[in-house]
Amino acid sequence: MTTPSSVPALQQGFSSDNIAGASPEVFDALLRAGTGQAPAYGTDDGSLRVQRKLADIFERDVDVLLVPTGTAANSISLSALTPPWGAVLCHAQAHIANDECGAPEFYTNGARLKLLGGQAAKIDPAELAVEARRKVGDVHSVQPSCVSITQATETGGVYTLDEINVIGGICRDAGLPLHMDGARFANALVSLNCTPAEMTWKAGVEVLSFGATKNGVLGAEAIVLFNPERARELEFRRKRGGHLFSKMRLLSAQLEAYLDNDLWLRNARQANAMAARLAAGMQGLPGVALQGTVDANILFCQLPAQAIEGLLADGFRFYHDRWGPGVVRLVTSFATQEQDVDHFLSALRAQVA
Amino acid sequence: MTTPSSVPALQQGFSSDNIAGASPEVFDALLRAGTGQAPAYGTDDGSLRVQRKLADIFERDVDVLLVPTGTAANSISLSALTPPWGAVLCHAQAHIANDECGAPEFYTNGARLKLLGGQAAKIDPAELAVEARRKVGDVHSVQPSCVSITQATETGGVYTLDEINVIGGICRDAGLPLHMDGARFANALVSLNCTPAEMTWKAGVEVLSFGATKNGVLGAEAIVLFNPERARELEFRRKRGGHLFSKMRLLSAQLEAYLDNDLWLRNARQANAMAARLAAGMQGLPGVALQGTVDANILFCQLPAQAIEGLLADGFRFYHDRWGPGVVRLVTSFATQEQDVDHFLSALRAQVA
Amino acid sequence: MTTPSSVPALQQGFSSDNIAGASPEVFDALLRAGTGQAPAYGTDDGSLRVQRKLADIFERDVDVLLVPTGTAANSISLSALTPPWGAVLCHAQAHIANDECGAPEFYTNGARLKLLGGQAAKIDPAELAVEARRKVGDVHSVQPSCVSITQATETGGVYTLDEINVIGGICRDAGLPLHMDGARFANALVSLNCTPAEMTWKAGVEVLSFGATKNGVLGAEAIVLFNPERARELEFRRKRGGHLFSKMRLLSAQLEAYLDNDLWLRNARQANAMAARLAAGMQGLPGVALQGTVDANILFCQLPAQAIEGLLADGFRFYHDRWGPGVVRLVTSFATQEQDVDHFLSALRAQVA
Amino acid sequence: MTTPSSVPALQQGFSSDNIAGASPEVFDALLRAGTGQAPAYGTDDGSLRVQRKLADIFERDVDVLLVPTGTAANSISLSALTPPWGAVLCHAQAHIANDECGAPEFYTNGARLKLLGGQAAKIDPAELAVEARRKVGDVHSVQPSCVSITQATETGGVYTLDEINVIGGICRDAGLPLHMDGARFANALVSLNCTPAEMTWKAGVEVLSFGATKNGVLGAEAIVLFNPERARELEFRRKRGGHLFSKMRLLSAQLEAYLDNDLWLRNARQANAMAARLAAGMQGLPGVALQGTVDANILFCQLPAQAIEGLLADGFRFYHDRWGPGVVRLVTSFATQEQDVDHFLSALRAQVA
Repeated sequence: MTTPSSVPALQQGFSSDNIAGASPEVFDALLRAGTGQAPAYGTDDGSLRVQRKLADIFERDVDVLLVPTGTAANSISLSALTPPWGAVLCHAQAHIANDECGAPEFYTNGARLKLLGGQAAKIDPAELAVEARRKVGDVHSVQPSCVSITQATETGGVYTLDEINVIGGICRDAGLPLHMDGARFANALVSLNCTPAEMTWKAGVEVLSFGATKNGVLGAEAIVLFNPERARELEFRRKRGGHLFSKMRLLSAQLEAYLDNDLWLRNARQANAMAARLAAGMQGLPGVALQGTVDANILFCQLPAQAIEGLLADGFRFYHDRWGPGVVRLVTSFATQEQDVDHFLSALRAQVA
Repeated sequence: MTTPSSVPALQQGFSSDNIAGASPEVFDALLRAGTGQAPAYGTDDGSLRVQRKLADIFERDVDVLLVPTGTAANSISLSALTPPWGAVLCHAQAHIANDECGAPEFYTNGARLKLLGGQAAKIDPAELAVEARRKVGDVHSVQPSCVSITQATETGGVYTLDEINVIGGICRDAGLPLHMDGARFANALVSLNCTPAEMTWKAGVEVLSFGATKNGVLGAEAIVLFNPERARELEFRRKRGGHLFSKMRLLSAQLEAYLDNDLWLRNARQANAMAARLAAGMQGLPGVALQGTVDANILFCQLPAQAIEGLLADGFRFYHDRWGPGVVRLVTSFATQEQDVDHFLSALRAQVA
Repeated sequence: MTTPSSVPALQQGFSSDNIAGASPEVFDALLRAGTGQAPAYGTDDGSLRVQRKLADIFERDVDVLLVPTGTAANSISLSALTPPWGAVLCHAQAHIANDECGAPEFYTNGARLKLLGGQAAKIDPAELAVEARRKVGDVHSVQPSCVSITQATETGGVYTLDEINVIGGICRDAGLPLHMDGARFANALVSLNCTPAEMTWKAGVEVLSFGATKNGVLGAEAIVLFNPERARELEFRRKRGGHLFSKMRLLSAQLEAYLDNDLWLRNARQANAMAARLAAGMQGLPGVALQGTVDANILFCQLPAQAIEGLLADGFRFYHDRWGPGVVRLVTSFATQEQDVDHFLSALRAQVA
Repeated sequence: MTTPSSVPALQQGFSSDNIAGASPEVFDALLRAGTGQAPAYGTDDGSLRVQRKLADIFERDVDVLLVPTGTAANSISLSALTPPWGAVLCHAQAHIANDECGAPEFYTNGARLKLLGGQAAKIDPAELAVEARRKVGDVHSVQPSCVSITQATETGGVYTLDEINVIGGICRDAGLPLHMDGARFANALVSLNCTPAEMTWKAGVEVLSFGATKNGVLGAEAIVLFNPERARELEFRRKRGGHLFSKMRLLSAQLEAYLDNDLWLRNARQANAMAARLAAGMQGLPGVALQGTVDANILFCQLPAQAIEGLLADGFRFYHDRWGPGVVRLVTSFATQEQDVDHFLSALRAQVA
């Protein structure tokens, strides 16, 4: 079996946290779990251990369904929270609205995403309070059926506990279940420095897409249910979507390693720290302006056009000019190292000198 | 990294080929592919290599979409072959009809599975010829839209090349595309000792679910398209189903290892040989009667009730009494070893002595 | 306004009861209802009167949704009785299975019709009892979710009250709601000479497609709910299917006239009597053999090929040779008159003389 | 048969054009068509005559499908113009977006409505030009697939021919078919004083929902296809939606009367003239302010709160305070008479005096 080189190449990609691979612990767990026989379809020991571990982490009973992608986690979750004639209230910049090719509509059999506004890709509570009751009972209109928030948001912001509680309260008042797209759950959690329980069910979240793929595994996510009533239905929906793995240990082993020994928290802290290091290093550089705050592992900034071209020519990779001329997005991950950041900063300094 | 023990425990499970783990080459490939950065969503080098390798294997250009499960491969494939008001003609014992919880109906937005008869879970061509033209153009009826065959079948049978060509001809005459559920493609191929091209597009197959999970990988399948027109549509359907992996190398690395150095063929030959060894060892045992032929890696037999109980008590695992009283199904896999078979046979001999 | 001629032409069509027009009372009601202003979307007085009248007829509170076609009534009804991963248990010859182009699959978002056998197009209770519990809880399989019977059946048979009660009991035991496709409800009712309550909710029917179009109106059916919990959901499903009429009086006026003064029962008695007259007149004719019994307004018989050709040449219209060589189906309606029947019988006698 | 009184009561409802009944010619046609036998499912002579008449009116071959409601016409039309992963570009105030309970999502199997801005509920062409090419080919995003405009709009505006041609040009350039929701087609047509051809296919419209229900019939609309390729698919989709009437003459007779002798144009002129009379009569009244222009049969105005209350107390019916405090919408119809308008105006004058 090949051993990875002990001196890894510099990682020059800042385009997304999904270009990184996986933590060594994950491969180790896969190898351990992948030999020998195991029961199929989620009754393997690893799946049970993941469920117990998540119950520990969330300080309560939970139901857990493992799926391979964030789109599957979100769409299957939402399908249990809305009838086909329902509206899913979410921010206009939500991943479910912009990056999943209509998977929510597919899994919900045609529910509608109702797009809301709000700063930093966080739902505006006042607008939510209105939309949560819009045309309720009017047979001519889709019916508000659930709310989905993204934590951390697509633009790297993090809802505070207060903000989640406000939204949770609006949902409770209107009788709408609250879903959290936690593709970057760990990044948000370590940013807030709170407990998983506080950031979810204690604030009103009923269903969580617990992400792992962006933070150290190759492909595994967990749907975590704080309301046990929906579990059985979701099992059928997962199977029907083709997401019930016969060799479920492919997913459970990844997640077990991810949760063991706080790997998930360590990975997220690393990613966030590297984004903070980037931000700190960019302070005061001529022509460089940070945009917004850097709550998690995503950073937006304004760079001179020439600097963008120069960095690309140097081999760096990132998205730019999508959100406005000269706007650059940099994403760090668990795999980003200090020298990767410093290498980038030094190249940037050379460009803007 | 843990090394698996060099003296593996005896594998006593014969309930399915999905209880086995993966070949060592697969873990090796995962480790190699899983570190460092790679482009997301299927543009990694591994995905391109898998596509090229499949083109070589099938001796022609193909389009390839990687998905994690057989249900996803089948359902997404079928969704491109039928409108919602179409009928998918398949055998009444087909996996798509009995074991996928309506995933084909979900992905096709409500097409109907039209269940056909036929010996050994193979579609009866005469019935197919009639159903392929049933109520064509009648607006009151679902319309025959495609045909799906399973190779090898759910009961372990293998369509001969002649049989596939006959079905392919009926499809061509009726203008219906032909899908092959190849969850056990390799097992069928080595059984027939023909080329992949002969067993597919040369016989009229247009879309293939190329299975790997049951034969040596942890979770990876390929949709192989011999008609390039459908590829673009399928990419949207895969994404919409939540089956487009950001870190696609999780799938591509498994499949690359699977195809490299004929691992897939070697694994299938091992599984088939072990089923044949089981069959040979059961010949002439008192009270034991083989059912049908053993074309691939599945064996049906009749055992005395007492023997079934005894074997279960000995720790062996298999399905029984589902297909009739005393009927036992035994499934071998790439991981089944001669000593596993001999262990079972010796226990069986003890039971029926 | 044109007055229809007082000497109507002979009606030579026996192909279906949907080729007839409507009773004069229906046009009268349409005219009365169709002028002046009325509230839209089902809050017109006529809709409320229809609901009250159906409550009277069924001797209990009911919820009522008006829709224009039998396919809409059946499909919308079923959509409230099964999840997308459910199976609707019905006879293999049911209208929902053969004549609605997959509308049930469309409205249920992909549920499966599980086709059962049984004599005279009536579900075999023994088979139903098995299928009602088939793979319940098995995530790999669609789940038995409801049962649909057709009264009268597609072949003109009528379930006895005992037969309905047996099926209702199986449904109750298995926890499955029972739907009745009553496209020919009135024909069955007058055949059994029982009360509407006895033929429905007292026997376990939960949702009824109460047909009228085949029995004297131009296009109007009622979904009658004996379980009030489902009404709200069905209103959304009806709207979403495009079946909520703004000028609902188009439907309610037809149905009000249909129910007033027992028009529906008189019409059905006429249709049934004409079928019986046909049957009586065919007794003993050389080469002519009745098939099965004539419970309602549909008659199957075997005719010599030459007689079939002769009758067609004489201008008569009916389906033949679909159910076997020489098999003819004759359908009467409320509009069929004695002279129409006698005209046919005399032509038939001439053919077989 | 009852004769309506020759002195009809004053019609005090201005809430919608769907509270009116039908023109006398329509009842006459229904009665003529509704007696005697006729072939079922759209092969009646009346259906053929409607198709020919629409071909005459549009000066070219057309395919025609009759359906009972505008929601059915729109949703079935759109279902042929977009794949499930497509986006339907429409105005945020479009009927399909706000008043059909997600029927477009249902019929398209989950396509998304992309809501655009623009004055007077007309799509802004500049925004359309951008959205028509947004993320084309990006597998993560729903794909722009068709455009739907409403003529006349929900707020009573009418696209000029130039405006339609501009939108048609954008559609042609982007390869997107153009649908027109013509629930008030006739009102728009007589407002523009152009030919039906000019307002549709000559300007780039490919599929038209040709409305009639709001303008003189009880319940009948026509899907008019200027591109023959889509007709066959739509027939299956209509049947599957439960909208294929067995006694199609219920729809065809209404539409035939509607088109005969320019009834449709006369009715629309009456409705528009009554709206204009309302507008003229409100000019200069104290506290009364018209909003926008009155292009068709819908008028928006600002009234004092006290006047609104007074008019309601007088028995008048209209929607108010939905679009802002004091904003009133008045809708006239073919059935609105001069004395109805004058009655309202006189009451209004009394209120604001």
